[in-house]
Amino acid sequence: MSTLIQPKVLKGFRDFLPNAELKRALLIEKLTFSFRSLGFVPIDTPVLEYSEILLRKSDGETEKQVFRFNDNGGRDVSLRFDLTIPFARFIAEHKDELYFPFKRYHIAKVWRGEKPQAGRYREFVQCDFDIVGSDTASADFEILALMKSALSAIGVDNITIRINHRGLFNAFLAKLGLSDKSEDILRVVDKLAKIGKAEVASQLETITGTAKSAQDILTYIAGSTNFDETLKLIGEMAGGDEIIQGYVQRLQDIQSLLTAVGIENTFVLDPSITRGLDYYTGLVYETFLNDLPSIGSICSGGRYDNLAGLYMKDRVPGVGSSIGLDRLVAGLEKIGKIDDDSCFLNAEIFCTHESLFVHYQTLANNLRKAGIAVEVFPEAKKMNQQYAIAEKKHIPFGITVNEEQAVQNVLTLKNLKTREQHEGITIEETVKILKT
Amino acid sequence: MSTLIQPKVLKGFRDFLPNAELKRALLIEKLTFSFRSLGFVPIDTPVLEYSEILLRKSDGETEKQVFRFNDNGGRDVSLRFDLTIPFARFIAEHKDELYFPFKRYHIAKVWRGEKPQAGRYREFVQCDFDIVGSDTASADFEILALMKSALSAIGVDNITIRINHRGLFNAFLAKLGLSDKSEDILRVVDKLAKIGKAEVASQLETITGTAKSAQDILTYIAGSTNFDETLKLIGEMAGGDEIIQGYVQRLQDIQSLLTAVGIENTFVLDPSITRGLDYYTGLVYETFLNDLPSIGSICSGGRYDNLAGLYMKDRVPGVGSSIGLDRLVAGLEKIGKIDDDSCFLNAEIFCTHESLFVHYQTLANNLRKAGIAVEVFPEAKKMNQQYAIAEKKHIPFGITVNEEQAVQNVLTLKNLKTREQHEGITIEETVKILKT
Repeated sequence: MSTLIQPKVLKGFRDFLPNAELKRALLIEKLTFSFRSLGFVPIDTPVLEYSEILLRKSDGETEKQVFRFNDNGGRDVSLRFDLTIPFARFIAEHKDELYFPFKRYHIAKVWRGEKPQAGRYREFVQCDFDIVGSDTASADFEILALMKSALSAIGVDNITIRINHRGLFNAFLAKLGLSDKSEDILRVVDKLAKIGKAEVASQLETITGTAKSAQDILTYIAGSTNFDETLKLIGEMAGGDEIIQGYVQRLQDIQSLLTAVGIENTFVLDPSITRGLDYYTGLVYETFLNDLPSIGSICSGGRYDNLAGLYMKDRVPGVGSSIGLDRLVAGLEKIGKIDDDSCFLNAEIFCTHESLFVHYQTLANNLRKAGIAVEVFPEAKKMNQQYAIAEKKHIPFGITVNEEQAVQNVLTLKNLKTREQHEGITIEETVKILKT
Repeated sequence: MSTLIQPKVLKGFRDFLPNAELKRALLIEKLTFSFRSLGFVPIDTPVLEYSEILLRKSDGETEKQVFRFNDNGGRDVSLRFDLTIPFARFIAEHKDELYFPFKRYHIAKVWRGEKPQAGRYREFVQCDFDIVGSDTASADFEILALMKSALSAIGVDNITIRINHRGLFNAFLAKLGLSDKSEDILRVVDKLAKIGKAEVASQLETITGTAKSAQDILTYIAGSTNFDETLKLIGEMAGGDEIIQGYVQRLQDIQSLLTAVGIENTFVLDPSITRGLDYYTGLVYETFLNDLPSIGSICSGGRYDNLAGLYMKDRVPGVGSSIGLDRLVAGLEKIGKIDDDSCFLNAEIFCTHESLFVHYQTLANNLRKAGIAVEVFPEAKKMNQQYAIAEKKHIPFGITVNEEQAVQNVLTLKNLKTREQHEGITIEETVKILKT
C-alpha cells in the first residue's frame, strides 16, 4: 500500500462544514432576495483573468498579495483579488450589450495572499452591488437604502452608516494647498478610530509641515453636532464655489431622501470617513454594528466618476458598496445574531428493520407528496447513533415503524426535543401534526 | 493619457451577462431546494489545494489540463478540476467532526485547461451530490430518486436514466480472463453510442485477441428485452457465485424501490453503461434527455467502495452523482425548456420630472411596504430609452407621475406588454391591480 497523503488545506484557506456553509448560504440567499427586489441583476466573471487587466492600476502591496502565474499556454494570469476591477473590465467589454443605468450584484470568492491572522483569510467571499451610468442623488440614495434594507433582511438592524463626500474633502485640501499630499493625509485620517486623535494630529503635522494645517484638518474631520451643522461647517471650510455648492446640494438631496423614507436616523454625516483609496470622487460611506463597532466597517463604498477608464474612453460614473461577508458572519456570531440550527427536514424515518426498506421509502414518498420533508435512515444502525445524527442535523421529529405497524400502515411519531410521542398514528394524522 | 488595455476574458473563459447568470442561478436554486428537502447538506472547500492532494491519482491527461503553479510561498498548488477529490480529502480531514451516513451537495466552479471547443469551457460549474458511509440499496435508490426529482424540479421530466452494475461487469471480464485488459475494454464500450457496434466489435477483438471474447462482450452489453431478463442474462454471464448473487440482489432491491415510488419507467438496466473510470465498483448510471440524447449524459455517477483511501486508512463507501450544469443549460436552451424573462420587479417608476425625485422614492417606499417590488429610474432620460430598458429587464408594468398627480398622490399605471393604461389611480388601486 502506498503512503497516505496528509489531508490538509493550504494556509489561510478553509473548509466549510455543513452548519457553517449553510449559515453563509442562507445569508447570501437573503441578500440576493433584497438585491433582486430592488431591480439589481446578477452577473458573473471568471476567477482567472489576464494579470495586465487586474494589476495595471494596483499598488505594490496588492501585487505582492496576488496569486499570479503563467498558465500552460504561457499567459500571465491572476486570480481576482476583488470584484470591482473585473466589473470595470466587464462594463468596457459588454457596454453595447448592456443598458445604463445598470444595477448589478455579484457575490463571489476573491483571493489575496495576505499574512493569515485572526479573521483574515486568503480566500473569502465579497458581496458587491453597484449602480453605474447615473450620477444622481437618487442613485446614491438607492445604494444607501439598499445597504440598510439588505442588512435588515439578515437581521442586522442596529447599525450606523457613516457618510461623507470626498469631493468636499479634496476641495478642502486643495484650499489648504495640500492636494499633492492627499494620499498620505487620507491614510492617516482613515486610521482615526484605530490610533486616536493625538496620534493623528502628530502624523498630520509631520505630513503637512505645519501645526495649523493639522489643526484645520482635525477641525474639519471632527464635524459638528448634527447633519445640517456639519454640512454647513465642511461646505464653508471647503470654500464656496459652484462645484462645492453642488456637492453640498447632493448631500442635502440624499438627506431629504433618507428622511422621506424614514431611515435618516441610521445615517451620520461624518467628515472623518474618507475610504483611503483615491478611487472615490463623491459620496463615501462605512457601516458599523452598534453592538460591536470594534470589528470595523462591514459594508463600505462610495461614488466614483470613471469606473472603466483603463479599458475604454467613455466615462462611466457609478456608486457602489461591498459587504465583507466573512467579517460580517464573524461579527454576527459574536453578538449571537445567527442561528445555528437550520434544518429543511420535518422528520427522520429511522431504520429499525432492514427488511422494511421498501416500506420506509414508500412511506417517505407518501409524506413528501403531502408536503412533508423527510429522509430515510438507510441502514439499521444502533438507535442511539441514529438519534445522535438526527440531533446533529437539527431534525425536529423522528418516525419509527415496526413490522406490525407496517402491516397496519401506521407509525410512531416522536418529537425529538420534547420526547413527546404519538404511537400507532396514521399518515394523515402524522401530516396534520407535522404541519402545525 | 495612458494607452487603453483591451478588455477581454481568457480563452475558454466566459462572462455571464444578467439574463444568462440569472438563468443559471435559478437552476441552482431549484436544485438546492431539492437537495435540502431530502436532507442533503452543503459544504464548501477551497478552489486552490496542494497539487499533491489533487493530482496523486490522476492520469497524464488530467495533469496536463490542470492550472498548477507555485504560490508566493513556494507551495505547489492547483485549481481543483473536480469536486470529488476535494470531497475525499474533506472526508478524511474532518471524519471526526462529521456523522455517517453523510449526505452532501456541492455546487461550485472547477477548472480544466481543455482545448476550447463548442460547449467546452475551461471554467465551469459542477453540481455534485453523494451519500457516503452507507453501502445499501436504500442509499443507491436515494441518489437515483434524487436525480429524478432534482431534474424534475428544473422542468426536465422527459429523461431516461440508464443504470448498470460495475461489479457484475468486472466479474464477467474476470470470468473471460480479461481483468488485466478491463481499462481498455471499458474505454471502448463507453464509446458504443458514438462509434457504433461494428467498430466496438473490431476494437474489442484487437484488445482481447479473439473474436469469441469480443462477441461475448457484445452479447453482454446488448442486454435483453426488459429489466428482469437483462438482469438474468448478465447475472448468468458474470457467473453465479455468492458475490454475484449479492450484486444481482442489489439491483433487484433498487428496482423494487423504484417501483414502490412509481418512477421505474424512467430507468433502464443497460449493461453497456460502464462510466470508463476504474473508480466505480457498484451501481453506475447516466442520464439522457429523451428529446436530445445527442448531447450525452447530463447527470452521471455511481457507487465507489473507498472514497478517501489516498488520505486515510478507514474505508468510506459511497454513492454519488454529478450534474454538468453548463451542458444541461445548453441542452435546455436547445429544446426550449428555459425561460428567458425572469424578473423580480412588478413595476418601474419612470422619471419624467427630476424635481419629483423625493416623491418617486416615497412612492416606491410605500409600494414596497405593500409588498410590491418596484425600482425608480434615477434620472429623466428620454422616455423611449426608459421604456427600452424596462423592456430589456422584462418589467411588466410602468408607473408615471406628473406634477399635478404628485400633488393629488395619484399615478398612471401602464401594462408594458398590452399597453393597457390606468390613469390617475391611487396607490391602493395600484397595489390591487399589481397583486392580481
